[in-house]
Amino acid sequence: MALDRPSGDERARREMKWWGWGDPDHRPQLSDHAVAFLRAEVGIADQLRRPVALEGVKLGEPALSGDVRGRLTAAVGEEHVRDDRRTRVVHAAGKSYPDLVRQRAGLCEGAPDAVVSPGSAEEVRAVLDAAADAGVAVVPFGGGTSVVGGVDPERGSFGALIALDLGRMDALIALDERSLTATFGPGIRGPEAEALLARRGLTLGHFPQSYEFASLGGYAATRSAGQASTGYGRFDELVLGLRCAAPAGELAAAADFPATAAGPSLREVLVGSEGTLGVITDLTLRVRPRPPERRFEGWFFRSFAEGADAFRELEQRRAAPDVARLSDEDETRSALAFAAGGGARDLVGRAYLRARGYAGGCLVVTGWDGSAEEIARRRAAGARILRRAGGLPVGRGPGAAWERSRFETPYLRDDMLERGVMVETLETATNWSNLLTLHGAVRGALHEALAARGTPPLVLCHVSHLYPSGASLYFTFMARQEAYHELDQWQAAKRAASDAIVATGGTITHHHAIGRDHVPWMRAETGPLGVDVLRAAKTAADPAGIMNPGKLLPDV
Amino acid sequence: MALDRPSGDERARREMKWWGWGDPDHRPQLSDHAVAFLRAEVGIADQLRRPVALEGVKLGEPALSGDVRGRLTAAVGEEHVRDDRRTRVVHAAGKSYPDLVRQRAGLCEGAPDAVVSPGSAEEVRAVLDAAADAGVAVVPFGGGTSVVGGVDPERGSFGALIALDLGRMDALIALDERSLTATFGPGIRGPEAEALLARRGLTLGHFPQSYEFASLGGYAATRSAGQASTGYGRFDELVLGLRCAAPAGELAAAADFPATAAGPSLREVLVGSEGTLGVITDLTLRVRPRPPERRFEGWFFRSFAEGADAFRELEQRRAAPDVARLSDEDETRSALAFAAGGGARDLVGRAYLRARGYAGGCLVVTGWDGSAEEIARRRAAGARILRRAGGLPVGRGPGAAWERSRFETPYLRDDMLERGVMVETLETATNWSNLLTLHGAVRGALHEALAARGTPPLVLCHVSHLYPSGASLYFTFMARQEAYHELDQWQAAKRAASDAIVATGGTITHHHAIGRDHVPWMRAETGPLGVDVLRAAKTAADPAGIMNPGKLLPDV
Repeated sequence: MALDRPSGDERARREMKWWGWGDPDHRPQLSDHAVAFLRAEVGIADQLRRPVALEGVKLGEPALSGDVRGRLTAAVGEEHVRDDRRTRVVHAAGKSYPDLVRQRAGLCEGAPDAVVSPGSAEEVRAVLDAAADAGVAVVPFGGGTSVVGGVDPERGSFGALIALDLGRMDALIALDERSLTATFGPGIRGPEAEALLARRGLTLGHFPQSYEFASLGGYAATRSAGQASTGYGRFDELVLGLRCAAPAGELAAAADFPATAAGPSLREVLVGSEGTLGVITDLTLRVRPRPPERRFEGWFFRSFAEGADAFRELEQRRAAPDVARLSDEDETRSALAFAAGGGARDLVGRAYLRARGYAGGCLVVTGWDGSAEEIARRRAAGARILRRAGGLPVGRGPGAAWERSRFETPYLRDDMLERGVMVETLETATNWSNLLTLHGAVRGALHEALAARGTPPLVLCHVSHLYPSGASLYFTFMARQEAYHELDQWQAAKRAASDAIVATGGTITHHHAIGRDHVPWMRAETGPLGVDVLRAAKTAADPAGIMNPGKLLPDV
Repeated sequence: MALDRPSGDERARREMKWWGWGDPDHRPQLSDHAVAFLRAEVGIADQLRRPVALEGVKLGEPALSGDVRGRLTAAVGEEHVRDDRRTRVVHAAGKSYPDLVRQRAGLCEGAPDAVVSPGSAEEVRAVLDAAADAGVAVVPFGGGTSVVGGVDPERGSFGALIALDLGRMDALIALDERSLTATFGPGIRGPEAEALLARRGLTLGHFPQSYEFASLGGYAATRSAGQASTGYGRFDELVLGLRCAAPAGELAAAADFPATAAGPSLREVLVGSEGTLGVITDLTLRVRPRPPERRFEGWFFRSFAEGADAFRELEQRRAAPDVARLSDEDETRSALAFAAGGGARDLVGRAYLRARGYAGGCLVVTGWDGSAEEIARRRAAGARILRRAGGLPVGRGPGAAWERSRFETPYLRDDMLERGVMVETLETATNWSNLLTLHGAVRGALHEALAARGTPPLVLCHVSHLYPSGASLYFTFMARQEAYHELDQWQAAKRAASDAIVATGGTITHHHAIGRDHVPWMRAETGPLGVDVLRAAKTAADPAGIMNPGKLLPDV
């Protein structure tokens, strides 16, 4: 059941650094300029703080009984049940800041007892049966890129835990070029899927920052949004149907129905279920003809408020670009500083900005996909609105710079950690009428919480997803790490920001999902009875509660 | 908590004929031409079959105990607990074909024991508490326009039943003109909401055939789609948030989040829940600036297949109109015949069609909303595609005729019933690659099932909602009624069509919802475990099972 598959070479490129982000051979460093900027803004450590060696990582003995191990190897084959050190450590965490702090310190006591790699839905079923019978927790593992603890090995009340690595289920299973739909296995990575589609003149158009490593099943399980989602739609909007192996049986939302009025949407229950109901075994997605051209460019606004209002108008007048990104004043300042050190001194001419009254203003990046003619037509309509709303075009330089570096930021995080800088991101969304209030509230909460600990932060924010009724806000904050108290420090900042989000009418997460880190705010988000309803649904699908314990739903 | 409300005059126009559709004073008749057409195609009765008089309707004694009635009147006020004959009969059914067959025959033994009209969410809560304590079934009742038995008074295991009429909860509660959102009470009707919005230069843009009487809460509870949903989006896409009073407490999906990644979508569980989880007490909707102009026009295609392909291209190339409707050959033939009798002899020039090779072809109606400039620009792009795909423009006449008559068809159904003609509609949706196969399968099933009973039907179909991956199919079928066996005859046709839909990859309902009539196909649609999961969610919200028994979910 495969039209096509990633190559062995592609598969070989999937494993990330166990202690950080991405390709182990790619280790970009902050420029001197950026280091100087960070030193001045938040302070950095005197000495580099390196991760421990793999051999130094603390790891418990595998806790699976021989019986269970036997059933698992019978289900998937001996070579697909692995418990060597590297494999267990790689699967011991996702890529959140607390994950990396723990991994770099070598704290992997909770690592999975084994990593099981099924090759088919039938093998997933056999693994779940064995795990349910034996009371073994199961963490579905796609690309392992969660930044909210979504793949952390939480055992709940169970004595053993396996990570279910879906990497072997990576086929392009079916393609309907007439209906523009493609069916994939859950474990295929973004670039692999794009490569298989590109050969057929198609694209998914989904490019989150985790793109190089995240899996399609993970996108669906977490309601991912990508950099071009303003144009292409969030990943949940691209999912037409999916199948899920749950401990109690199969859950499926048919992909053949472009729309239906048949009751509550089971698809919308499975999408976003974060492995707590079952394991996605295939998913059918909307695809599009590959755009022949792509054009990014920069604009400047005098203030975040002015830029946000321009974005609102773009979107409500159906003239939004495919990529739309507005940095606030601090993020713009920081981007200019980082770029200046990276050899792109003329990202935006400061003298020009000053002369035009845009000094201290806000950078916008827009991206348009399509034929040259479509781009010209859509861009003209968008540019008219941006200009009238106070925007100053600053050419293709900033757009090109953003495009070049758009998957690099997570790599630089590793260098920041090495220099003793805490760097974390969080995101929310709200109505247009509440956007600036929420922006101020989250910034304020982060500044206050971290200043109170003696580590005043730099807080950056951008708008990157537009909707008719509102938009997302994506925050990055940095502060000098409190050595030995990194997790407390992070917790204090996270709690302050999340409380502010919930109190100010934002969603606790726009596209990172709930995972483990957002569970304490799930009741505020969904209401106590809403949580009860979702938990009842989970119990029907997973009576023993083995699926991804501790994630998504608060305990009763 | 009301910015504005419908007037008393508007409220007074809400009550429909108890035995048929719509305004009791509006009783349009089929033209002689149309009658002759029906006589020739399916046969009609020799004598008119009139409904019984209201006094002749069979009605049981109200079964509410004095205790329960006391709690209900304490909750909502004496005048809002009604059990007079007319009120009970009006609330004894929706407007499906079987509903009307029963109502016209005066078979209302199961009518609600009382009709309770709460004025606020607090009053809804008090009513639900009383009903849950006493074991009284509750049927939420908006406009009462369900065509799938959604408001039928099914008692389940309960001895008494009330209809919860939401007509008093009809305020425009809040408006956010910056975010383009409006919050309404559930009982407001479509035209009332449009009137309140029009004063503020806004529109919802939702125009199903039930528009004149259906309520906004009902639209949300049933995932309604309207005639302009290709452009404006289905009603489920217009719902940003809603609140629901469930027996176990309140369920709410916040309207402040334009998008969220916080787990399974509770909103998508409440939308489409058809009163089985609880009662929608308010809902926040996306609104838009009112389009200054609207342009409808007609096209012809040589065949349904050619037209469907043109529609696919329109949609996939993002050039779809707001209204897009393609009739198959039989529906086109029927429309021309009905129109010829209605004084619009020149709807489309037959000689012209013949000369151009389009005789026996298929009519398309397109509608464009916006400023004159927007319409011109969008229409030009759409017309280019239609023309290249083989379409022949036939001017504004057919579009105008369709627009004039678009809410009239349900009235004419009453005249057909009077003439002994069964007329019923059903709808589905599937992928583009499966559309013609499904069209053929449903047509075939209806022809076979009804011919086998000696009443060969006329089966009409149109495509009216376009999606990137597929489209809807809307069937109308007519046959001579089998006197005394009307319901068996209907059941046989319905079963044949529904089995064919499910076997051929269509959804059991694209926008009519499940109600009672589609329950037997819900397991095929959602899967056995899917039904279990939804039932578990229901039980958490409604432990005693009082909410709309017998609807949506099959019994265990």
